Amino acid sequence: MLIGIPFLWKLCFINDDIAMTLQHEDYMKLAFDAAFNGVRNNVGGPFGAVVVLKGEVIGKGCNMVSSTNDPTAHAEIVAIREACRNLQTFNLNNAVLYATCEPCPMCLSAIYWAGIPAVYYCSTRVDAENIGFSDNFIYNELDKPIEERSIRFSRLNLEEGGELFNEWTNKEDKIVY
Amino acid sequence: MLIGIPFLWKLCFINDDIAMTLQHEDYMKLAFDAAFNGVRNNVGGPFGAVVVLKGEVIGKGCNMVSSTNDPTAHAEIVAIREACRNLQTFNLNNAVLYATCEPCPMCLSAIYWAGIPAVYYCSTRVDAENIGFSDNFIYNELDKPIEERSIRFSRLNLEEGGELFNEWTNKEDKIVY
Repeated sequence: MLIGIPFLWKLCFINDDIAMTLQHEDYMKLAFDAAFNGVRNNVGGPFGAVVVLKGEVIGKGCNMVSSTNDPTAHAEIVAIREACRNLQTFNLNNAVLYATCEPCPMCLSAIYWAGIPAVYYCSTRVDAENIGFSDNFIYNELDKPIEERSIRFSRLNLEEGGELFNEWTNKEDKIVY
Repeated sequence: MLIGIPFLWKLCFINDDIAMTLQHEDYMKLAFDAAFNGVRNNVGGPFGAVVVLKGEVIGKGCNMVSSTNDPTAHAEIVAIREACRNLQTFNLNNAVLYATCEPCPMCLSAIYWAGIPAVYYCSTRVDAENIGFSDNFIYNELDKPIEERSIRFSRLNLEEGGELFNEWTNKEDKIVY
């Protein structure tokens, strides 16, 4: 018994650890399944994502940019939109996102707006750049002052700007997000 | 005649200049119309945008986050998606975007992905922060190393990552975006 107890404890610990590792990998493999299916069926680029809440997949997606003519239809955004539709909420603040690649700045910002607190990813933005995607370029552009970016920004400072924000501030039945 | 020609030239120049100024303001006012309508009809937050191609409005939108339960339905993204649907393309590389507020990092990245080369905006990210929106917070988060962000990132480096990107690289009929 004195020998058995530590042994059993260690077995439980290892099993629990393996189970946890397998679980994360399983979710990631679902994201990869979505990505492989997307590539093979000409849905879009090689990216997949799933959103998980309390162990359940509530949103799944692959990149759909080219097949839907939607430059915002990245895997993470497709999965977040599906999860929000399923839950009828715009806040996923207890969910976890699994993405086959480090999210681009658009998707990363979407993850912030959705309130998702944890992300698992596999490939990196540099891996994506190496096969021709702009993720890393856009990250670098966002770091630059507005006047040094490749997109030309011009400010038109109309009085409607202040009026609109004042109307929002004073609106009593507004839904804050 | 010697007096008349410079006068006429100056008149044309002024008119052209005024016409150009009015044109930009007119498009921006369409973006504000969309934003005010959105706020007053409880569609979403106080933001509007239009996409213009060769003088024609091809996409228009207001923030629709709260009414559609879509955290990605910011005005710029709504307008870009509509423009792409109308033109049946994922590339808006000759278009101009007018936004009532400086785009958040999600929308800015979407503008890069859509290939839009020029943006006119009115209010700033700091103005947005002052009425309670997270734009500036997210800009600051994106600047941070991945391990210092408020979202927890964990890497699961599975072999599927390399396999997926290799399959994409070797795919002969892929649509690059």
